[in-house]
Amino acid sequence: MKKALALDIGGTKIFAAVVNEKGEIEGEIQKYKTPKSLDEIKSTLKDIISKSENMVDIVTIATAGAVNNENSAITSSTGNLVEGYNTIEFGFLSKRKVFVENDANSAAWAEHAVGAAKSYSNSITVTLGTGVGSGIIIENKLLKGKSGAAGEMHFKMSNDQKRKCTCGAWDCWEIYASGNGLRLTGVDVTGKEDITTYDIMAGVEAGDATMKEVFDIWQRYIINGLVGLANIFDPDCIVLSGSMAEFVDTEFIQWEVNKQILTQPTKILHASAGNYAGMIGSALLGISKL
Amino acid sequence: MKKALALDIGGTKIFAAVVNEKGEIEGEIQKYKTPKSLDEIKSTLKDIISKSENMVDIVTIATAGAVNNENSAITSSTGNLVEGYNTIEFGFLSKRKVFVENDANSAAWAEHAVGAAKSYSNSITVTLGTGVGSGIIIENKLLKGKSGAAGEMHFKMSNDQKRKCTCGAWDCWEIYASGNGLRLTGVDVTGKEDITTYDIMAGVEAGDATMKEVFDIWQRYIINGLVGLANIFDPDCIVLSGSMAEFVDTEFIQWEVNKQILTQPTKILHASAGNYAGMIGSALLGISKL
Repeated sequence: MKKALALDIGGTKIFAAVVNEKGEIEGEIQKYKTPKSLDEIKSTLKDIISKSENMVDIVTIATAGAVNNENSAITSSTGNLVEGYNTIEFGFLSKRKVFVENDANSAAWAEHAVGAAKSYSNSITVTLGTGVGSGIIIENKLLKGKSGAAGEMHFKMSNDQKRKCTCGAWDCWEIYASGNGLRLTGVDVTGKEDITTYDIMAGVEAGDATMKEVFDIWQRYIINGLVGLANIFDPDCIVLSGSMAEFVDTEFIQWEVNKQILTQPTKILHASAGNYAGMIGSALLGISKL
Repeated sequence: MKKALALDIGGTKIFAAVVNEKGEIEGEIQKYKTPKSLDEIKSTLKDIISKSENMVDIVTIATAGAVNNENSAITSSTGNLVEGYNTIEFGFLSKRKVFVENDANSAAWAEHAVGAAKSYSNSITVTLGTGVGSGIIIENKLLKGKSGAAGEMHFKMSNDQKRKCTCGAWDCWEIYASGNGLRLTGVDVTGKEDITTYDIMAGVEAGDATMKEVFDIWQRYIINGLVGLANIFDPDCIVLSGSMAEFVDTEFIQWEVNKQILTQPTKILHASAGNYAGMIGSALLGISKL
């Protein structure tokens, strides 16, 4: 059975584990804080890889940032990682073949291969975290686009320049549907600049009517974007993944989306490939290219 | 050289011509008014086909409405055609194989095969007419989705229920970026309920400042939607087709879109496959499936 040493490099943590061709994690998951300098990141990656590369057929890396179509390098800057991160030549980190893919694409592939979207050819996995990521599967293939950056959920939800997105443009879906979007909706409704996502969710839990209103508006923003994705892609299903997805009501969202679309009904599902979907997806994608 | 008898069935006109495998129209283009009853439509189609089917290898039909993935039937109703239109069994209209595809998909395929997007693997052709249609080409393949309806440009441009779209939902891009959207923008700006697209474009032509303002807002709506499509698909190019595309400034739009996207620069191009792109595209798609 083929195996990958799979890494998931995020802005705050790096995970690593051996994953087999069935998408099963073998042995322990290693966890590290993401170092604050480029040199330290490189040496941490080298350490992780040198310890395990002899046990596997390929090293696979799920990472923030857009990854090129050769799966070898990052093509666009990644705000939450150190400067110069996109210059890392991943191929030199191992004796083995190194396969790199964007983390949201990797998570989407895990949902497609072994998770909630397993029985479907056309799926979109939307990762609702601090920001919004996505991976799009069309006829069992990952949508990459001309430069590998496809799946950026930065489509506008307003013509009126209401909220500036972290990407610099106005009114992207990300700045409405993300955790950050929930917080900003809380600021809009309450006028409290220092309100947190935690405050809002704790309020909802405690039955606070204002916090429930904030949550409902935010969930409506999610629905409004999903209607567009369902009409554009006519997918079998849309999988909601990431920390913020745990709070949403997929049954209600599915009902609302299908009421508004022109295409045939789409399923809205909770992710099921787990917290390590990034590693599992990158391993399965990488092994499939061997 | 293989040939198709290609038909383009719209709400007001039916076109027909013989198209060869190079995408060249051979002989005259036949033009008919679209009959107002289902039986008359069927008999018109039978007449057109019976006259020419012996000269060709396949009959291909570009039509309004979503077409299934078997390219044999229409799966969703088409507002501007007679009731029951979607029940037509196209396969019975000819002794030859009959291949059916949506008209905007067919036009996009023509741009991909012989038009403005010819040198690119990933393109989106947006047809700006009374409404907005589109066809999406990914790695030289037409995006169909699970039921054949992919490419519906009904993604929301507002969270605030500002304009009702003809599809019944609120604030779809179609109701902002279409010819109908230009008219409604004219109503918004001038307060004149009976203003027409023609009034607005004649005013722009004559140097009227208010009409120029209406036009600029409308063109901004087009840009706002294209930013999203460029971020979602990372395409090589987006082709603007249809009667309303003749008025827009693609150079300006390209500059504005590329200023706002996260992905690599996208080309914004005028369509070049001509007024009969629907017939040409359906013929080339159909012949490619022989």
